[in-house]
Amino acid sequence: MSNLSLLILPGDGIGPEVMTQVERVIDWLGDQRGLKFDVSRDLVGGAAYDEHGVPLADETMAKAQEVDAVLLGAVGGPAYDNLDFSVKPERGLLRLRKEMDLFSNLRPAQCFDALSDFSSLKKEVISGLDIMIVRELTSGVYFGEPRGIQDDNEGGRVGVNTQRYTTNEIRRVARSAFELARRRSNKVCSMEKANVMESGILWREEVSWVHENEYPDVELSHMYADNGAMQLVRAPKQFDVIVTDNLFGDILSDCAAMLTGSLGMLPSASLGAPMENGRPKALYEPVHGSAPDITGQGKANPIACILSLAMALRYSFDQGEEAARIEKAVEKVLADGVRTGDLMGPDGGTPVSTSGMGDAILDAL
Amino acid sequence: MSNLSLLILPGDGIGPEVMTQVERVIDWLGDQRGLKFDVSRDLVGGAAYDEHGVPLADETMAKAQEVDAVLLGAVGGPAYDNLDFSVKPERGLLRLRKEMDLFSNLRPAQCFDALSDFSSLKKEVISGLDIMIVRELTSGVYFGEPRGIQDDNEGGRVGVNTQRYTTNEIRRVARSAFELARRRSNKVCSMEKANVMESGILWREEVSWVHENEYPDVELSHMYADNGAMQLVRAPKQFDVIVTDNLFGDILSDCAAMLTGSLGMLPSASLGAPMENGRPKALYEPVHGSAPDITGQGKANPIACILSLAMALRYSFDQGEEAARIEKAVEKVLADGVRTGDLMGPDGGTPVSTSGMGDAILDAL
Ligand SMILES: CC(C)[C@H](C(=O)O)[C@@H](O)C(=O)O
Ligand SMILES: CC(C)[C@H](C(=O)O)[C@@H](O)C(=O)O
Repeated sequence: MSNLSLLILPGDGIGPEVMTQVERVIDWLGDQRGLKFDVSRDLVGGAAYDEHGVPLADETMAKAQEVDAVLLGAVGGPAYDNLDFSVKPERGLLRLRKEMDLFSNLRPAQCFDALSDFSSLKKEVISGLDIMIVRELTSGVYFGEPRGIQDDNEGGRVGVNTQRYTTNEIRRVARSAFELARRRSNKVCSMEKANVMESGILWREEVSWVHENEYPDVELSHMYADNGAMQLVRAPKQFDVIVTDNLFGDILSDCAAMLTGSLGMLPSASLGAPMENGRPKALYEPVHGSAPDITGQGKANPIACILSLAMALRYSFDQGEEAARIEKAVEKVLADGVRTGDLMGPDGGTPVSTSGMGDAILDAL
Repeated sequence: MSNLSLLILPGDGIGPEVMTQVERVIDWLGDQRGLKFDVSRDLVGGAAYDEHGVPLADETMAKAQEVDAVLLGAVGGPAYDNLDFSVKPERGLLRLRKEMDLFSNLRPAQCFDALSDFSSLKKEVISGLDIMIVRELTSGVYFGEPRGIQDDNEGGRVGVNTQRYTTNEIRRVARSAFELARRRSNKVCSMEKANVMESGILWREEVSWVHENEYPDVELSHMYADNGAMQLVRAPKQFDVIVTDNLFGDILSDCAAMLTGSLGMLPSASLGAPMENGRPKALYEPVHGSAPDITGQGKANPIACILSLAMALRYSFDQGEEAARIEKAVEKVLADGVRTGDLMGPDGGTPVSTSGMGDAILDAL
């Protein structure tokens, strides 16, 4: 079996706590399933800033480029709120995305049966929900030049950012959405604001081009992003795969994640082009943030991060069966009523700590 | 009494149908309440394109600059989908916003008691909801230069848009949000992406400046726009006034509108600087669109457009009492179970046409 290399970047806040539980699952995979990972660990975000004065050291960046997959916890926290823009914890994450060229960000919004009461939406609107949002992750207004703050000519200042998308950037992320759709319900909805932005017109045209020339068998529709937000709230189950740009994807995927009521449960994958060994460059991370309010209290839910490992098994290591095994274990634990604080509802359940949830999942495996 | 001038632009789709009912209310105000409006009518959107080859004729633009208030129905429709970007129906609306300098777009997201079952959200999450979203409407990525589609150097194309905000542009819309908050629950939440966009950093700094120097009595908080979308879905009642930029405002206000389940009910006001007579430049329009699927069938709900007239009475004509009278009539009609098609729920109610709803509201007045 080829070497399976993994770089773990726990980051800030609850990142290290949830990652400890993930490492137990990694050990279990080695001991019980013969999947021995070559694991290294390093710093990112505020933790890296504290040590190196930058949110991602060059050596860490180099390591990330070499491994088969990066697993990240979370970045940021109030201690770093007043840092300069260029060294904010988020810049570490953005540097990883950009330099690894992770253009396709997969964000499943899935409603777990045992948790459908947790949503602010009515049960019939969200139960069984299973959407995949594909967000472009390396371009658009996040990275476009020119950018910055200058003096204007009226004694004030002007803040500038540039949204920029090329044919290739749009086509490659569209392809990854169509590929996913083929393995799901064969339906893609593309979202932009082609009615007000030229970059949105190009987006629509290039997605349509890929559709007509390469994936005519997949059903494609287009929606303005504002209507997309409405439709997500009104009737989310109309969607299968959604493909959209970096900024709209940021907002729409968070909206979709919150619909499910299972925020502490949702993983994500950020994928790039194939490396020499055929595996895509890849980074996996939970959708939730660093949750400073509960940091260090043993309250964090490790499931989103454990499911991110499952996504790594599926998309980086071709171990779909092992991924499904982990996903089933999580479902069983939830059905048994095992609950971290964020999952405690009116129906009761057995309250557990972060490590208690880890115990339960290992038991179920 | 000074002259009350009003320019009516019914526009496309259901625009003309709902506007007919609004005109009945305007007549009633003249006959019964002594509020005689000087009403003129003109074309906008696809209707203007069909007549003049442009979505807003120069003469119409000039008229809009002179009146006390513009009342607009809706623009757009499938017949115009393949038009060139520069003559799309939406450009007519955007030209009005830009040339009248309507920088402050007020979008109430309000849940009507009689309709709280219509939301996809649980009743306890949205009943009594009453948020005001203040969206910057004349700048940002909607209008920033450079913009367009060019060839890139790789045999493809590149689409570019520019987000640009100045100190003045941010401060003036922030002021209008703080003013509104003082007449409501005294709480403003400002949303941007200061963690990834410099224009967002400037936004946050300038909103804070206005707060510290001019409105220290109002409670101000800041939120990243992606978290804002999440919080709107999770617990919308935490908000009173939200202030945000043009693009985020487009998406977040549509999301908030759909939360209420009362989309066909929601009006909006777009306000500019005071004119010589002290009244602000102003345009009023429903939040819903041109609804091509039900156009011409007498099914459209005229309430959003009638409530837009009520907003005009309040913000342009200082007739808050008359505005409240109309709003109460609408509430009574809803409580009586009078329902256009979009409001027909499992609980039944009396189905009426567009003009039937107009009849009921006039009866209640
Ligand atoms: C932390 C932040 C830079 C990031 C983003 O805006 O992309 C986050 O919101 C996300 O969605 O992963
Ligand atoms: C019709 C369109 C140009 C417009 C916008 O994007 O502003 C609409 O969505 C709105 O919110 O008023």
